[in-house]
Amino acid sequence: MKIINTPKELSAYAKAQKDAGKSIGLVPTMGYLHDGHASLIKKSASENDVTIVSVFVNPTQFGAGEDLDSYPRDIEHDCTAAEAAGANVVFHPEPGDMYPAGYGTYVSVDSDMTKVLCGRSRPTHFRGVTTVVAKLFNISAADRAYFGQKDAQQLAVIMRMVSDLNMGIEIIPCPIVREPDGLAMSSRNTYLSPGERTQAPVLSRSLSAAKKLIDAGERDVKTLRDEISRIISCAPDADAEYIEFRSFPSLDECGGRISGKVLIALAVRFGKTRLIDNIIVNI
Amino acid sequence: MKIINTPKELSAYAKAQKDAGKSIGLVPTMGYLHDGHASLIKKSASENDVTIVSVFVNPTQFGAGEDLDSYPRDIEHDCTAAEAAGANVVFHPEPGDMYPAGYGTYVSVDSDMTKVLCGRSRPTHFRGVTTVVAKLFNISAADRAYFGQKDAQQLAVIMRMVSDLNMGIEIIPCPIVREPDGLAMSSRNTYLSPGERTQAPVLSRSLSAAKKLIDAGERDVKTLRDEISRIISCAPDADAEYIEFRSFPSLDECGGRISGKVLIALAVRFGKTRLIDNIIVNI
Repeated sequence: MKIINTPKELSAYAKAQKDAGKSIGLVPTMGYLHDGHASLIKKSASENDVTIVSVFVNPTQFGAGEDLDSYPRDIEHDCTAAEAAGANVVFHPEPGDMYPAGYGTYVSVDSDMTKVLCGRSRPTHFRGVTTVVAKLFNISAADRAYFGQKDAQQLAVIMRMVSDLNMGIEIIPCPIVREPDGLAMSSRNTYLSPGERTQAPVLSRSLSAAKKLIDAGERDVKTLRDEISRIISCAPDADAEYIEFRSFPSLDECGGRISGKVLIALAVRFGKTRLIDNIIVNI
Repeated sequence: MKIINTPKELSAYAKAQKDAGKSIGLVPTMGYLHDGHASLIKKSASENDVTIVSVFVNPTQFGAGEDLDSYPRDIEHDCTAAEAAGANVVFHPEPGDMYPAGYGTYVSVDSDMTKVLCGRSRPTHFRGVTTVVAKLFNISAADRAYFGQKDAQQLAVIMRMVSDLNMGIEIIPCPIVREPDGLAMSSRNTYLSPGERTQAPVLSRSLSAAKKLIDAGERDVKTLRDEISRIISCAPDADAEYIEFRSFPSLDECGGRISGKVLIALAVRFGKTRLIDNIIVNI
C-alpha cells in the first residue's frame, strides 16, 4: 500500500491509473479508523480496481470552540487498518497542502438542508465538508466515493452538491456499523467517560423502538418522537439536541404523519461529547 | 457541428471523446459571439481534438437590476460563427437545465479579489461566474478552457478557483480583440448609442497612453491614473467607475509605484452601458 502526502502526487497517481483504464474508489475519512470505515474500504475494494483512503482532519469543517485540536489521530493505526481492509493508497496531506497560503475558494450548499439538524448548531460545518470533499473528488479522480449513512445529513448534502455541480462521480451510501450494544461506531466515542459509554446505547435503542412502532403501523410523528424522547431520558446524562423526522435525501420536515423515505435523526450530548445516530425508513 | 442542449447529453458526449483518447477544449461564452470569441475558439481548435463552445446567458452572475433580460441573444448567428471558427459542439442549455428545481450549490472565491474592481458594484457576480464555470468544467470534462483577458478579474478568479479546488484543467488566457478604433470587443457594445460609440474608444486610448508613459519609464501610480482620467474625461458622456492598478493575478492593490506584473483596469459608464477594459504590463 502506498502512502501519499501531497495533492500533486495523488493527482499524478490517479491520472496514471485512469490512463491505464483502472477505476478508482475514494473513501474520505478524518482517520482514527474503526470498523465502520473498514466496511466502506472493503466495499470500495470490491467495486473498484484501486481504492484511495484519505485521512485528513479537515479544519474548515470545525467551528470555533469545536474539537479540531483534540480530535483523535493515529496515522500508523490508520495505515494498518486501511491496508487490512483492502486500500491501495492512504492519502494523508497536511492542512497547508490542502489550504495553502492565499486559499479562498469554498463550495457550499446554501439551501435549507444545511441549516437544519446538525447545521443549526454547526453553521459553517457543511461548507467545510463540501469544500474538502470537492477537492478530494478532483484530486483523486474517483469514479465512486463511499460515505457512511451514520452522517446522513452529510450524505444528503454531498449528493446535492454532486448533482448540482454535475460532478461525474457516483456516491455510494453504506449502512451504519454498530458496536455489539448498538452504539453507532464513531471516532468521537473515545471521548465518552466509562459512565457515559454505558448510557450511550440509548440513541440506537430509541431508534429501534421507533422502528418497531412504525413496523406495527404507527405513523404519527408526535407519538414516535415522544417514545424516542422517553427512552433517551432514561439515560441520566443524556441531553437531546434534536430528534427530527425528515424526508431523505431532501431533508424537508415531515408534517404530522410520516410517509415515503424518512430519516429519523438524533443528536444527543453526554457532557462535552455530541453523538449522532439515525435510521432511514421506507413507508 | 453538433448542437447539444442538456448537461446529460454533453457529459455523455464528453465521456465518449475522453474514452477515445481525444483532448477537449472548452470556450465558455454568453453568446452573441464576436471576433474576440472567435479568437478563443480558433485557439482551442488548434490545441485540442474537440472544441466545445458553451452559449449560456448565466442568470446567477447577474445582480438585481442588471441586464439579464436585455442581454443580446442570437443563437443562430452563434452556431454559424462557432462552426466557422472551428467548434465541434455548441452547448446551449436552458436555465432550468443548469439550475433545476431544488438547486442550491455555489462555488465562491471568498477572498478580497472578488470584492474589488467589478466586485465592488457587482457583489454576487463572481459567485455566479465560478459556479457556472465549475459546472461547465465538470460537464465538458475539458482538458483546457479558454478565457479572454478582457475580463481580467474573471480570469484571475477562475485561476484561483482552479488552483484552490485542485481542478485538473488548464486555463488558457487569450489577448483582447479590439475594433479598428481600439474599442475592446464586447457583446454589450451593442447597447451604445451612436454618440456613445464614438466616444467609447477613450478607454483603450487612455490605456495606450499609460502604456506609452510606462514604456518611457513612468512608474508613479498617481501620475498614470491622472493621465488615464484626463483622457477619459475628454469623452463628455463617460463616467469612470474605477481606474485601478493591481498585481496580476493576485489583484492586490499597487502602492505608490508599479512593479512586477500589473493589471491596469477600467470600468466606465456611458449612460446605462458599463464598459470595461484593461492592459497587463510586466515591469
